[in-house]
Amino acid sequence: MLLKIAPGGPTPVFRQIQDQIARLVDEGSLCPGAHLPATRVLAGHLGVNRSTVYRAYQELWSRGYLEARPGSYSTVRARLRPPGPALGQAPSGFDWAAAAAPAARAAHVGSLRLGARRAAPAATDDLVDFASLAADGALCPVDELTRSMRRVLSRRGREVLGYGDPAGYRPLRETLARRLRVHGVAVTADEILITNGAQHGLDLAVQLLAGPRRVIAAESPTYAFALPLFRLRQLRVRGIPMRADGLDLDALERLLARRRPALLYTIPNFHNPTGITTGQAHREKLLALCESRRVPVVEDGFEEELKYFGKAVPPIKSMDRSGIVIYLGTLSKVVFSGLRIGWIAAPREAIERLLAIHRCGALSGNMLVQAAVDDFCSAGAYEPYLRRIHRVYRARMQALQAGLTEHLPARGVEWTRPAGGCTVWIRVKDRPASREGALLEAARREGVLVTPGSLFFADEPDGLCLRVSVSGADEGRIAEGCRRLGRALAGVVGG
Amino acid sequence: MLLKIAPGGPTPVFRQIQDQIARLVDEGSLCPGAHLPATRVLAGHLGVNRSTVYRAYQELWSRGYLEARPGSYSTVRARLRPPGPALGQAPSGFDWAAAAAPAARAAHVGSLRLGARRAAPAATDDLVDFASLAADGALCPVDELTRSMRRVLSRRGREVLGYGDPAGYRPLRETLARRLRVHGVAVTADEILITNGAQHGLDLAVQLLAGPRRVIAAESPTYAFALPLFRLRQLRVRGIPMRADGLDLDALERLLARRRPALLYTIPNFHNPTGITTGQAHREKLLALCESRRVPVVEDGFEEELKYFGKAVPPIKSMDRSGIVIYLGTLSKVVFSGLRIGWIAAPREAIERLLAIHRCGALSGNMLVQAAVDDFCSAGAYEPYLRRIHRVYRARMQALQAGLTEHLPARGVEWTRPAGGCTVWIRVKDRPASREGALLEAARREGVLVTPGSLFFADEPDGLCLRVSVSGADEGRIAEGCRRLGRALAGVVGG
Repeated sequence: MLLKIAPGGPTPVFRQIQDQIARLVDEGSLCPGAHLPATRVLAGHLGVNRSTVYRAYQELWSRGYLEARPGSYSTVRARLRPPGPALGQAPSGFDWAAAAAPAARAAHVGSLRLGARRAAPAATDDLVDFASLAADGALCPVDELTRSMRRVLSRRGREVLGYGDPAGYRPLRETLARRLRVHGVAVTADEILITNGAQHGLDLAVQLLAGPRRVIAAESPTYAFALPLFRLRQLRVRGIPMRADGLDLDALERLLARRRPALLYTIPNFHNPTGITTGQAHREKLLALCESRRVPVVEDGFEEELKYFGKAVPPIKSMDRSGIVIYLGTLSKVVFSGLRIGWIAAPREAIERLLAIHRCGALSGNMLVQAAVDDFCSAGAYEPYLRRIHRVYRARMQALQAGLTEHLPARGVEWTRPAGGCTVWIRVKDRPASREGALLEAARREGVLVTPGSLFFADEPDGLCLRVSVSGADEGRIAEGCRRLGRALAGVVGG
Repeated sequence: MLLKIAPGGPTPVFRQIQDQIARLVDEGSLCPGAHLPATRVLAGHLGVNRSTVYRAYQELWSRGYLEARPGSYSTVRARLRPPGPALGQAPSGFDWAAAAAPAARAAHVGSLRLGARRAAPAATDDLVDFASLAADGALCPVDELTRSMRRVLSRRGREVLGYGDPAGYRPLRETLARRLRVHGVAVTADEILITNGAQHGLDLAVQLLAGPRRVIAAESPTYAFALPLFRLRQLRVRGIPMRADGLDLDALERLLARRRPALLYTIPNFHNPTGITTGQAHREKLLALCESRRVPVVEDGFEEELKYFGKAVPPIKSMDRSGIVIYLGTLSKVVFSGLRIGWIAAPREAIERLLAIHRCGALSGNMLVQAAVDDFCSAGAYEPYLRRIHRVYRARMQALQAGLTEHLPARGVEWTRPAGGCTVWIRVKDRPASREGALLEAARREGVLVTPGSLFFADEPDGLCLRVSVSGADEGRIAEGCRRLGRALAGVVGG
């Protein structure tokens, strides 16, 4: 084997060795199975340090040129397919579209549809983001979480880095049970299952209750990412129209008189996307209707903790005497969206069955993260943080309402006035949903990012609507965003 | 409102106030909506510090007795159901078993079946654990991970605590792509989807390819936790018998001649449970058969990195010229089982569709954990750790083979000799699977925990078998465990 080494050149010696050997393998001069000289021998031969040769071999090994035998990197590997990004990008010879199961195809179509409508590239870099709905990263208590993470790793690192209880880290389940009592929900840790966010909780609930072609009921509009999930599970969604005070109870009653859906999916607090919160009487009536027809209620409490105007209304789950409600909670709109901490609170018979489904998809959850979040709460960091973001979001929501009042066309546009949460629903009166593309294009030109209303409807959208969220913009940006949105809407409303 | 305070007693004053107010609410003397005195007023009245009253109110609030209005805790809350563990434990009035969808019912039955057969309580505390199959917590590099976690939180805390790329943290996908090249698999970061462990990857692959009542092919025996997943997805599993050199290729060919299964699930390295590794010729033949019938291969590489005897055989995925293989990887058997880091490597057309399904169930993965694991690998901590556990597991596997040879009945029992991984498959010759209960009971009496063979079969088990794993026992315990297992088997074989 002839290698030419130029010490002191621009290329480090280990890389010269590495490159030349790689070339010999690529051109076939060194065959699979060929033995390279021992590092000591080659180093002596080339007059270089042994560690230089070692490093070259290690690099070659990590690029797949040599056999992966620990401590030894001396045999040329049989490579069945030359590595390289070019190959990776080539289309597969197999038809994955045709091979996909019908449900997977439906989810893919739904996902492309969501993606296409969201991906309106900005005309300007100076963009006001009214589209994001997540805990604001700028408010994130990183230092407190870092302390919690360090404590957990130093006190119980080995334990929380292994497989854990599939229902979730027990102390966190106890903390969550205590927290739910603040909202009048009396459950124990055994009635809680920790999930990877509320989306995961919804998927588990849907899998528990509804197989392919079953009918389910949901508000219309509803949470946009519930829709591709319903399609993946091949459900038939019957939309119950939203009124100013929540879903239309008469329409629900008429539906229940005709058929028994597998479940009712509802978001009673700061409904996504409309921001509407239902009153106690509405919740009691809804529950009574579902109880009388034995229809389980899946209550999405995704922003339960974000009430900052007026008195909180207790969740439907708090009134659930017959054990028919599956409650979904999440931290994601409050703090640490990326840690994926959600939970289900439900009767034990339901939790056991949800757990069986959960284990099929995940074996167990992330113990380290669950333990760190529990430490964060137990150390007293959660409640002061919550009070802080209440102040922030309250001020933002006030700024949004003031901005909309000031800048939106006085006639022809109406919007909701939520008691908490982060979103407001804007409806353009007497304009068809078909104008959505034009409205989005106008908003894009003005430099404001909004979420198109049609994303929230399983079927035809009910008019021309938009969702705006304050979770990603401070008060100054909100005022500017309203100004831009006003200009964008003026064209559509005036036109 | 009459409160009696005894300062200086065993109960702190704030708790006395809290308990007495709670009692007044519980017995109905204080009605929902009643206003408590302002903290200042009550403090003056009782002659205590105002912060003492504040603390009592805060506690009452956090227990659900008062309205949750930030900064104010003075109105008695309408409580619809008295909190208490007793209620939580009461059976639900709703029949969740009847409401469960057929697939959910199947998963629940499967899960109970697994649970019942695993939960053989030990007769002694001095137990040898041959059942666990997970990265050994005692070897876990906690300090290195702690350093990585700290670096990631301090450098990019806000970013990784928010929602991230649903396909996974891009630098980790790049690291994994480089790592896969070590095994001859040429993929780019765009052909990788990070999952919550390999179980999650398998669930996504199954959802992509197979709807209810489709036939799939898998080795028999196979990974135990794949079976409840297949039941949840309502698949019909055709088992291909395992031979000494891997799945029976003739049986696969006969099956493929008759029908086209939606996928073949295979574990070519250190097959779970048998420990068998197939050779390159076997892999090529398997792939050619599946290509000729256009049957996608789901290759489970769960212990790809745990080869420590002899030369590694490249994965089937490395030979995949037609893009028909979905490869599943995981860290869980190597390190940090509880962090749930797995991945899928597949053609982009497949990845896009898997991603759509993934988002329906989770929105995004855990960015913080993915970033910390990437830092752990990029900082050079992974490879030295891997070499270390290779030494450890090699020594354990040698101890297990020596112990089995020394202590198992010379006649009537045979077992596998894996080239890596952690498990050995023991078969009792000429004894029916119906003796499994007696064998497990004997093992329990001797104080050794093993996994019953029947768990790994979709249908009837093929004889009387056991799986033993060395991931949870060191060499001393392994020798002792073999002694105990020998005594347990002697009774069954001799009987």
